[in-house]
Order: sequence, then structure tokens, then C-alpha cells
Amino acid sequence: MLLKKEYETVRRRTEQICAPLKTEDYVVQPVVDVSPPKWHLGHTTWFFETFILIPNAKDYTVFDPQYNYVFNSYYESVGARVIRTNRGNLSRPAVEDIMRYRKHVDAAMIAFLETTALTAELQALFTLGLNHEEQHQELLYTDIKYILGHNPLFPAYDPSRKDISPVNNPSGSWLNMEAGIYDIGFTGEGFCFDNELGRHKVYLNDYAISNTLVTNTEYLDFIQAGGYQDFRYWHAEGWDWVKTNQAGSPMYWYNIEGQWMHYTWQGLQPLMPDAPVAHISYYEAAAYAAWKGCRLPTEFEWEAAAPLLSWGLRWEWTESAYLPYPGFAKAPGAIGEYNGKFMISQMVLRGGSEVTSPNHSRITYRNFFHPSLRWQFTGIRLAR
Amino acid sequence: MLLKKEYETVRRRTEQICAPLKTEDYVVQPVVDVSPPKWHLGHTTWFFETFILIPNAKDYTVFDPQYNYVFNSYYESVGARVIRTNRGNLSRPAVEDIMRYRKHVDAAMIAFLETTALTAELQALFTLGLNHEEQHQELLYTDIKYILGHNPLFPAYDPSRKDISPVNNPSGSWLNMEAGIYDIGFTGEGFCFDNELGRHKVYLNDYAISNTLVTNTEYLDFIQAGGYQDFRYWHAEGWDWVKTNQAGSPMYWYNIEGQWMHYTWQGLQPLMPDAPVAHISYYEAAAYAAWKGCRLPTEFEWEAAAPLLSWGLRWEWTESAYLPYPGFAKAPGAIGEYNGKFMISQMVLRGGSEVTSPNHSRITYRNFFHPSLRWQFTGIRLAR
Amino acid sequence: MLLKKEYETVRRRTEQICAPLKTEDYVVQPVVDVSPPKWHLGHTTWFFETFILIPNAKDYTVFDPQYNYVFNSYYESVGARVIRTNRGNLSRPAVEDIMRYRKHVDAAMIAFLETTALTAELQALFTLGLNHEEQHQELLYTDIKYILGHNPLFPAYDPSRKDISPVNNPSGSWLNMEAGIYDIGFTGEGFCFDNELGRHKVYLNDYAISNTLVTNTEYLDFIQAGGYQDFRYWHAEGWDWVKTNQAGSPMYWYNIEGQWMHYTWQGLQPLMPDAPVAHISYYEAAAYAAWKGCRLPTEFEWEAAAPLLSWGLRWEWTESAYLPYPGFAKAPGAIGEYNGKFMISQMVLRGGSEVTSPNHSRITYRNFFHPSLRWQFTGIRLAR
Amino acid sequence: MLLKKEYETVRRRTEQICAPLKTEDYVVQPVVDVSPPKWHLGHTTWFFETFILIPNAKDYTVFDPQYNYVFNSYYESVGARVIRTNRGNLSRPAVEDIMRYRKHVDAAMIAFLETTALTAELQALFTLGLNHEEQHQELLYTDIKYILGHNPLFPAYDPSRKDISPVNNPSGSWLNMEAGIYDIGFTGEGFCFDNELGRHKVYLNDYAISNTLVTNTEYLDFIQAGGYQDFRYWHAEGWDWVKTNQAGSPMYWYNIEGQWMHYTWQGLQPLMPDAPVAHISYYEAAAYAAWKGCRLPTEFEWEAAAPLLSWGLRWEWTESAYLPYPGFAKAPGAIGEYNGKFMISQMVLRGGSEVTSPNHSRITYRNFFHPSLRWQFTGIRLAR
Repeated sequence: MLLKKEYETVRRRTEQICAPLKTEDYVVQPVVDVSPPKWHLGHTTWFFETFILIPNAKDYTVFDPQYNYVFNSYYESVGARVIRTNRGNLSRPAVEDIMRYRKHVDAAMIAFLETTALTAELQALFTLGLNHEEQHQELLYTDIKYILGHNPLFPAYDPSRKDISPVNNPSGSWLNMEAGIYDIGFTGEGFCFDNELGRHKVYLNDYAISNTLVTNTEYLDFIQAGGYQDFRYWHAEGWDWVKTNQAGSPMYWYNIEGQWMHYTWQGLQPLMPDAPVAHISYYEAAAYAAWKGCRLPTEFEWEAAAPLLSWGLRWEWTESAYLPYPGFAKAPGAIGEYNGKFMISQMVLRGGSEVTSPNHSRITYRNFFHPSLRWQFTGIRLAR
Repeated sequence: MLLKKEYETVRRRTEQICAPLKTEDYVVQPVVDVSPPKWHLGHTTWFFETFILIPNAKDYTVFDPQYNYVFNSYYESVGARVIRTNRGNLSRPAVEDIMRYRKHVDAAMIAFLETTALTAELQALFTLGLNHEEQHQELLYTDIKYILGHNPLFPAYDPSRKDISPVNNPSGSWLNMEAGIYDIGFTGEGFCFDNELGRHKVYLNDYAISNTLVTNTEYLDFIQAGGYQDFRYWHAEGWDWVKTNQAGSPMYWYNIEGQWMHYTWQGLQPLMPDAPVAHISYYEAAAYAAWKGCRLPTEFEWEAAAPLLSWGLRWEWTESAYLPYPGFAKAPGAIGEYNGKFMISQMVLRGGSEVTSPNHSRITYRNFFHPSLRWQFTGIRLAR
Repeated sequence: MLLKKEYETVRRRTEQICAPLKTEDYVVQPVVDVSPPKWHLGHTTWFFETFILIPNAKDYTVFDPQYNYVFNSYYESVGARVIRTNRGNLSRPAVEDIMRYRKHVDAAMIAFLETTALTAELQALFTLGLNHEEQHQELLYTDIKYILGHNPLFPAYDPSRKDISPVNNPSGSWLNMEAGIYDIGFTGEGFCFDNELGRHKVYLNDYAISNTLVTNTEYLDFIQAGGYQDFRYWHAEGWDWVKTNQAGSPMYWYNIEGQWMHYTWQGLQPLMPDAPVAHISYYEAAAYAAWKGCRLPTEFEWEAAAPLLSWGLRWEWTESAYLPYPGFAKAPGAIGEYNGKFMISQMVLRGGSEVTSPNHSRITYRNFFHPSLRWQFTGIRLAR
Repeated sequence: MLLKKEYETVRRRTEQICAPLKTEDYVVQPVVDVSPPKWHLGHTTWFFETFILIPNAKDYTVFDPQYNYVFNSYYESVGARVIRTNRGNLSRPAVEDIMRYRKHVDAAMIAFLETTALTAELQALFTLGLNHEEQHQELLYTDIKYILGHNPLFPAYDPSRKDISPVNNPSGSWLNMEAGIYDIGFTGEGFCFDNELGRHKVYLNDYAISNTLVTNTEYLDFIQAGGYQDFRYWHAEGWDWVKTNQAGSPMYWYNIEGQWMHYTWQGLQPLMPDAPVAHISYYEAAAYAAWKGCRLPTEFEWEAAAPLLSWGLRWEWTESAYLPYPGFAKAPGAIGEYNGKFMISQMVLRGGSEVTSPNHSRITYRNFFHPSLRWQFTGIRLAR
């Protein structure tokens, strides 16, 4: 049965991501944007319990009524929640309790899927639950990297895992796109998030977009040319960010006795020169582009050119703020809180990354983060 | 001589705005976004001294070399500056010293204009200086209102001054705009800011836009319907803002023993029911629109419809982030810091307000503020 | 062999305190004053490794050179340290690694004690190490209580453990002490901390001191009489603390549907009326005393009366700031950082508590905390 | 009539202190501990109006009922007050209004004194009001120095005013004091504050106390010996303070191109080598003493030796926390808030300073500040 198989595939993958961890690694929250891995394990489970099982599965027994308080993320409609900064203070529920919670909900979901013909609405909710869990799979990777990569012992996540291999096209070339009207937004069958809907026309002027991502070597040139010391390349807010954080390189880069190292899945390693630069803020992406005499593409320019580009290694900062498409409408109820309420003070990222779940992204996919954030695998594609 | 007259008109108007103040009112800075009036008086003068007189006027004697340190606002190219939060700590230079500074620079400017044929570049700089001073004229009004309106004695600015009269069309009607390609951005003769340049085409879908601004009475309906207590109308960031600031009404509104009052140029007065609501954040504007089942217009929708609208009483929040137009380029040198470096984390406002200097705004004018700010005369126009 | 036995007794007790914990409980740091249990386990071990083994035990192999960075607490002399707020971000070293670290150091210490005749200086350092570990035993208890007692699931530490039994003398009587010169400070054989040294004379006026601690019931009277709402009983700093923290009861007290509960070693339980009140700040102790028309004793009054008192259930806030005795001198080297550098902005507590290690305290013992802290078992004894 | 003359002498002196100021100088509050001079002028007047005229003078007309809100400092008993950090935001009441307020209250006070025989209680309140105003006279000096001395133009307060002349005894000698019982606290006729009362015996051990204050030159030796870079001399809290504030010299010292300058009443001047060091925190005083192998005297040691010392140039930090004397009791009512509620987290200073009002201090006088504060004329006397 297809749904059941989809469900199990996604759910098992989440647990596999966590397999290399020690129990202690599941617990900590070094900064507010990072959640403890055990919280992700519980929260994704809570989603299925709260939105599918409790309202629809007769005889379902809630695993623990207090878990709603612990694992709700930001759904104001669904009761009180632990304030976000407190997640890393919670030693309980223990990892083994959460694993039992997953088993409990999984068994109930399987039974539910085996015995119930889903309505279209329920089917949509189910698919949303899987895509939601895939989003948390990516967050698990980035949060685990943060937790281990900010530990003074620099432990490897999985020494056998290879980091991303160098890209093939170290010297990028430019793709010229013609002015005209382009269609933007999701169309066709299959799942998409509400923020991709409202397919609409956009007029684009002539532009050129690079067919390759900026590499570590190219970014190092910017550092060595004094890019972090010259305010002219930076937004005012970015310049404040540089000074407040004494930023001088991407996150996870360390200059140790003159050699540039970076923290990777295998621990601290010499910088890989041809890999696409990662873990940079929007401010850094924009400053790099300004230094090169270029700019970042808008999300519309990106989407129009995407079929001609190789993408998926980095989430690519765009020069577009995260705002609703024409005709965007929130879903009714708690699910409606999913995307719309974040449409302010964030920038759009397009593409995907080495830790995005398989088949999760697409060319209409709109990721978004605050311009200062760097713990995602964020990178740079130039436009002009 | 035209330039001389323009110069004197603008410069005198600045001083007239300050005429009702007591010396003490020139000094304070109650919040970081508000500058002391005496700082505005000095800073606008510093602009002419630094960018026109010092580089171009032979034999010009700098009034006081330390003033560059005190009156530079944010031009990183022009040396150290007093950090912004400190402006309100500076009792010196005294108001009378700054008035002498203005006279000194004015005399030199008049002499310069009388004796020098301006190059096109100098002419542009001169016009920029006047428009810059007009921007600070508006800030003088809004900062003075903040200073007096947050004083527990609620002193009037000028009892003889009438507040804005009620708008004529209390019940708004909708203007339907057709889908298609529209031209956006400044064109033609005359002055504009760099952020208006790069005239370009934009495709707009069908939309409707209100031909009137939301009034105090209409906004009061939102308050009384519990709008500030229902998270569903708010962005997540806006909801945090409501709770952190315990916001429950526009700035300057006070509910005194059951009656709504607001602080005006004449002091505390009963709320004017038909005046367009003012002093609201973007969050409030967007929440009000959501509550009405509408939305805010984009800046492009606004500009396309503007010739058909009555505007100029309020700066109207749009659903557009402040980002560069295609082809935007910074000017070289310090002047290039004027606009581009603020193109992040701000929302665009269009229109003008009751305190915008005469002929200062236009339909391509792009004002911008952080979504939380309310001390400007900001208002709401609905779209759908 | 006595030293070996002492060593093993203390070291085993530390591990027994942690025995009821789950691995996750060892990791978190909910507030800056609480350290993760695994940090205590490592830090106490680091003390013996750093101050005894490394300088004195030939052929000792450091377990892991990076542990100095992780487990140093505040000894500026001994290299860089993890800044204190970061302890709860560190998932590694894992608990099992730290347990291996303890075994490694224990084996080396036992071998060292078996083969080496300790000099007087080394003997002193050894005894200091044991007393240091006993201090951390108490912190383990109070930190574990904080970690579990601030978890929304309120897990029990050890359901079989009885909380402190009610005191015998619910209505306290007063002990009258005569004015005169008293000797203060440690004298005699055995161990004491450097802050107890400098035995000296103090003149005390006539005073009376209660022979019993204030009970929960008595403290509840203060709450119910509006004590937390009446500024007259509070220091200005205490009143700010009440308002900032919205304090209305001791830490761990919860009024649930009209019934007062408190978090205990067995989880959330009805308030024990006759137990001595615990987990209060100095501000609360002083406000309670003021409300009763009394005051807190000075540390000198306490010490002079102590032989006549029953003490040891609560650390008793005194009206004495933590300052050096006449003749106080820091020890040379890192050990000299132990006490003296904290002699500012803290108040002295005398006595001991239900979780103080056996035989660890004495009547000359000077404990000290900032007046706002409540996570220790702090209580009140009145004087007048 | 004596009372009337006393009143007028004190009141006129306050205004004379402000005479060299420009209107703007009366308004600003650069840090929370400094109040705008116009606030001092109003607050001292409010004291007489609130505590003497309103309750006692028939037919007295309150000058402005809103002034209670503006000029109350910290008397919780007397209604709402402007929160302290906001004082510098208030441009109104204007200086001229406050001067009229002073005249209004002065006229009423004179009339009251001329027509009323004061009860003992009223007499005490009257004297307290004068001493209160004298305390604010000193604060006026120190706050004015802060306001002008933190302005980038470094304006002089009064160029004709001589700074304190060098002390006569540059090389200090030691005064040996014998162990024994000493009487501490105020006795005799005349005014004292409540915190000096409760005369009581204290036992002091043998000690030595310097008969001279530490000079600028001596303190410079500490700086040049690296005192601010060596944690061993500092309390842990002091060391954090050094690092957070990047402290490297007393307040108002500037090293300009290799020469040490300090801000004085005449503006920026070369450091006066023989003047007693001023404007240091308790942390700095204690660190200097530690570096010299000495310590600070306790307030009791100071008071016992004071008749043999020359004092009055600097407030001398003591190694005593500000705590109640045995038998200390608060006065009933608002006046009782004067001293007792500050008896926590502050250190005692003894002596007086070059800006203490004439005859205001005495050897039993207990001044107190938080250990981090430096804007008072604080200095160092060594003990051992």
C-alpha cells in the first residue's frame, strides 16, 4: 500500500539521520535557532498525532497528554507551548520515551492507513505531515552539525560519510536570459506548500545568471581582499552584524596557524577549495556579490532560469523578501499558520542543499530565513 | 537668482518648524529613532558644509572641525561619528551655537552660489542637499511630536495649529485595476532619489485598491472587535511585537476613563473620528487588512493606481520590501551611501503625509521604515 | 589506609548522587547558576588531575588534554575555559567518557596514594580536593532539583527518598545572648577553608536569636498577608527583583487550583506545613524578617550562638556581606583563587542543609551567594 | 531668624552651582546614575513642598499637581513616578518653569517659617530637607562633570575655577592603631542621618592606616605595572567589569598621543601628579590595594582613626558593605525610605570630597555606592 510505504520511508529516514548520535547529542540547544534532535523526533510525531490521529482515528489513545505542551512548535491554535529558548533545558522526555512515542504513533498511523480510506482533505494533511517531517530532516542535519561543530572537541558526525564532492564547473559561465513575461509558482500535480501557490505572471528585464555556485576558493579571495573590513560592500545592517559578531569568514571556518580549516561531517578538515561555499548569511552573500560588481538574482529570475541550471547543493540567497504571491490565501485552522505568518523580515532562498531530503525540493520551492542566519547550507549564485 | 531662493526657502522653513520650541525641547532623544531637533539643525547644515563648501569653495573656513564628529549621521566614508544612541546625551553644541553654525554656512553658501556657476554634478549635489533637508523637516515634525507627546505634561506644539481635517470620503470605494504591464520608477525631468531610478516594467495581476484611507473610526472597530487579542490576524513577528509592547492601539492614543483621546499638535484631544488613522506599525496595518479580509497593496500596485488616487495625508505601508530596482546602482563616494545600504529588513511606504514638505513627494517616491516603527504619520490603504 | 579510604568514600558518594539520573539529565543547564551534572563529575576529577597528579605523579598520562578546557571552572591561572553559560551546550564529552575519566584518575590517585608519602602541602591539597568535591555534591543535589523541578513533567528524582521530616519545635523560642567580646573563626585541628581563618575578636551587643527555623506555614502567613505586594518590607533592589520576576512565593511552590504544592524529591507534592521554608532569596528572608518586626542575625551573632542552636537543615541567610576576616590572606597560586575573589556583592549563609555532605559543615563555615539566588536550600532564622 | 537664613543659604547655593550652565546642560541624562540638573532643582524643591508645605502649611497652593509625578525620586509611598531612566527624555518642565517652582516654594517656605513655630518633628524634617538638598548639591557637581566630561567638545564648567590643589604629603606614612573596643556611630547634638544611629561598640584588631590618600602618580604606577591586565589583583566581579568596560584607567583619564590628560572643571588638562586619584570604582581601589600588598580599611577602622587623619578630599572606599548598625530602625512613613532600603549590594565610603557641601560631612557619615560606580570623587586610603 503506497501511503503506508511512503509513511514508513519518511519516518525511518528521520531515525537513520539520528543513528550516529550519542544520547547526549539529542538534548542540547546551543542557540535559539537550533532545536535539540530529540525535540525534532517528538515534534514531527506530534504533528501526526495532533492533526490526523486525535481528530480522525477512533479509539486512539493519546500517548501522553503533556507532550502537546512539550512538542508544539509555534501553532498558537493548539494550546500553550514551551517557549522556544527553553527546549534545550528539558532533559525529559528522555530519548527512549520519545522513541516509544514514535512507535506508538507509527503503529496507530499504520493501523489507521490500513483501515481508513482517506478523504482528499485527510490525504492532503497526511502529505503535508510527510513534507513537514522532511523539512525537519534537513533541520536535524543542520542542527546536529551546529551542536557537534560548536563543541570544542569537534567530534565527527559520521567519519565514513563523505562531504559534498567538488562541483564540476569551477569557472562559472553566464547564462543570458531575455526580458519578457514569465510564469511563476507551482503548477501541475503533486504536493507543494501554500506559499508556492498563486501561479502568476512576472515581467523580467534582461539579466544574466551564473550557471555555477561560488566556491570556497572564490570566497576566500573576498576574505583576503579585505572584504570583511570594507563597509562599502555591506548593507548598514550587515555591517553592524559584522562588527557585533566579529565575523570574518563563513560559519565553521577556522584559521589555525595560517591554514584554513572547516568543520565537516568527518570533523575538522582542511578547507575543500572547489566545494561551493556554505554557511553564509544573506549579508555576506550580498557583500560578496557587490565586491564582484554583481548582485544576487531575485527569486523570480532564479525560477525562470532554474530549468537551465544545475542546482541543489546549496540554498541560494536571493534578492527577494519573503512575501505572499498574488492570490495567496492561508488555509483555515492551525495548518494555516504554516507559512503565511512568517512573511515578514525574511529573505527567500531557492534551490536545495546536500542535506535536503530526496525529492523534497523543486524549482518553485520557497525557503526563507532571516538574513543573519548561517547554520543552513546557504550559498551564492551571482546575477547581473 | 533661483538656486539662492530655493536654498533660502528650504533653510528658513527648517527654522520655522522649530520656532515654537523651548530650548530644552531641542536637546532630548527619548528613543533611538528620534533625534534631538538641534541635531537635525546641525546635520542638515553639515551636509552643505561637507559635500559642497569644503571641497569646492575656496577660502571657506570650517566653522568648527569637531562638528563633523557630532553631526555626521551615518556616512562611514566621512570619519568617526557619535554613535546614534548618544545624540540625546549631548548638551553641547548649544542651540545658539548651532544657529550660528547655520548662519555661517548659509552666508558661505549664498556667497558660493552668487559667485560660482555650478557644474551639473555640483548642481545635483546641491539639489540633493535641499531634498535631504526636506526629509529632515519631516523628521523634525515627527521627532518633535514624539518628544512632546511622550512627556507626561503633554504640552502642545502649537495651539493655533489645526490638525489634519477629516477626509472627505468616509466610506471608501474600490478602484479596479486591470492586469497588464506597467512602467514603474522615475522618469522625466527634475529631482528624484537614486532608489526611484531604473524605470522598468512590472506585470500586475487584476487588483482592486481603495480610493480612501482607513479612518480612526474604522480602526477603532478593529480594536473593539478584539483585533489585538487574536493572533490569527498577525504575522508571528507582529504578534511578538504586540505582546512585548503590550500594544493595543496606535501610538499617541490613550483611553482615559473610557474615552479615546490622542495626542495632537494642540495637546491631548478627543479622537477625531474621520481622520485617517496614523502612527501604526506595518504589523498593525497588515493585521487590520487581514481582519477586513483584504491585504495591503504592493508598491507597484500603488504606483500604477496613484494617478487615480487622492494621496498625501499618510505614508501608506505597502506589502513590498525595500529592495533595489533592476539596474539600481549606487553613486560613487559618500553620496552612494544614501539609500542602497538600507535595502534590507524594511518595508516600503508610498504617498506622503501631512508633515511632508511641500512638493517633496511624488508618485514614484519610495519611503521605507522597519515594520515596527510608528512615530511617522503612517496609515493604511486596503487592496484585494 | 586512611587517605585512600577517604578518597574512595567521597568519590563513590558523588556517583551515587547521580545514580537515579537518566543520561539526558546529566547534560542540561537551565540557568547560568546551575551546571550540568556531567560537568560536576568532570570538574571534580579535573581538580585532582590538575593540582595533584600532573605536578606530582611521575608517569601520569593525561586522560585527554582538551578536558582542561572543558572542566576548568574559574581558575584564571590554569588556561582558557569554556565560558560559563556554555556548559549546557556541550553534548560531549559524553557521560560514559566522563565516567572513564573518573576511573582513569581514580586509579592513578589510588596508585599515587599507595606509593607516595604526602608532604604537608600535598596533604592539604588532597583534603581540599575532597572538600571541594563535597561542595559539588551539594551542588549536584541542588542542580538536579532545578533541572527536574523546572521540567513541565515534574519527574521525581527518587520516589523512595523521603523529604526532610518536619522540625520538632514548630513554635520557636528566643535565645538571649549577652553583649561582649566573642571569638570568631576557625580554630583547632582539621580542615577549614581559607575564608574561615584569621580567628579574631568581635564585639556583639545584646541580641536574641530564634532557636528554630521559619516553617512553610509561617512563611505562608507572610504570603497571605500580602507580603509580596507591600514595598515597605523590601530592599529597593529586592522590590525590583519581586517585580521583574513576578515573585510571589519561594521557588518550587505552585498554587494549583487553590492548593499550595511544592516540587520535592518525589515530584510535585502538597506543601509540608512544618518543614522549614526553603529556596528563598536573601530579599525574601529580609522582607519576612521585617514583616515580623525582626531582622536576620549577623554571621557573628550566628556563630556565637551556634553551639546552643540546632542547625543544619537550611543554609541560613545572615545580615552579613561576604568580606575577608582581619588577617585573611590568599594562598599563592591557583588555589588562592578559591575564595577571596568572590568577596564582593554576596551575602553570607551559615549552617548547612539537608543536602550538605556529612561532616562537611561546621559552625565556622562561611557559605555565600548573591542575594537573588534561590536554588540552594536556603532558609530563615530570626534575630532581634 | 536662623532657620530662614539656613534655608536661604542652602537654596541659593544650589542655584549658584548651576549658574555656569547653559540651558541645554540642564536637560540631559547620559547614564542612568546621572540625573539632569533641572531634575535636581525640581526634586529638592518637591521635597519641601511634599513633606512640609502640603501637610502643614494652611492655604498652600500646589504649584503644579503633575510635578509630583515628575520629581518624586524613589519614594514608593508618594505615588507614581517617572521611571528613572526616563528623566533625560523630559524637555518639560522647562528650566524657567522649575525656577518659578523654586521661587513659589521658597516664598511659601519663608512665609511658613516666619509664621510657624516648628514642632520638634517638623524641625527634624526641615533639617533633613536641607541635608537632602546638600546631598543633591554634590550630585549636581558630579552629574554636571559627567555631562560635560562625556561631551566630545570637553567644555569647561568654569574656567576660572581651580581644581583641587595637590595634597601636602605626597609620601604617606602609616598610623598604627591599637586593638580594642571602639565606639562607632553618631553621638551628640546636631543632625545626622538615620544610618549613623545606633551608636555601638566594635572590637578592632591592631591595624595600620595611611595618613594620606593615594595620588595620581602612585595610581599611574599601578597602570604602568600592568595592573589592569593581571587578574590576580581583582575580584572575579571586578575582573569581569574590567573586561566588559575595557577599563584601563580612572574615569576622565585619556591617554592622548602618549600623554595622560584628565577632564577637569577647566576642561581637558594634563594630569595633576600629586592630586589624590579620583573617579575610581571599588574594584579598582581594592585591586590597587592588593597590588601594594595592602588592603582597604573597614568603615570602623576608618572612623576610629578619623580624628587623627586629614580627610575630605575624596570619598574613600572602605572594605565594609553598607548594612544596618545594631539597633537601626527606619523612621515611619515616606521618610523611612531614605536609607534603609538601600542596605544591600553597596559598599560604604567615608570622608567627603572637594564637592561635598560645607559642613555636610562628619566622621560618622556613611556614604554608599555600588562597587562599579565611578562618577563620584572616589579615592583610596590604604590599610594593613
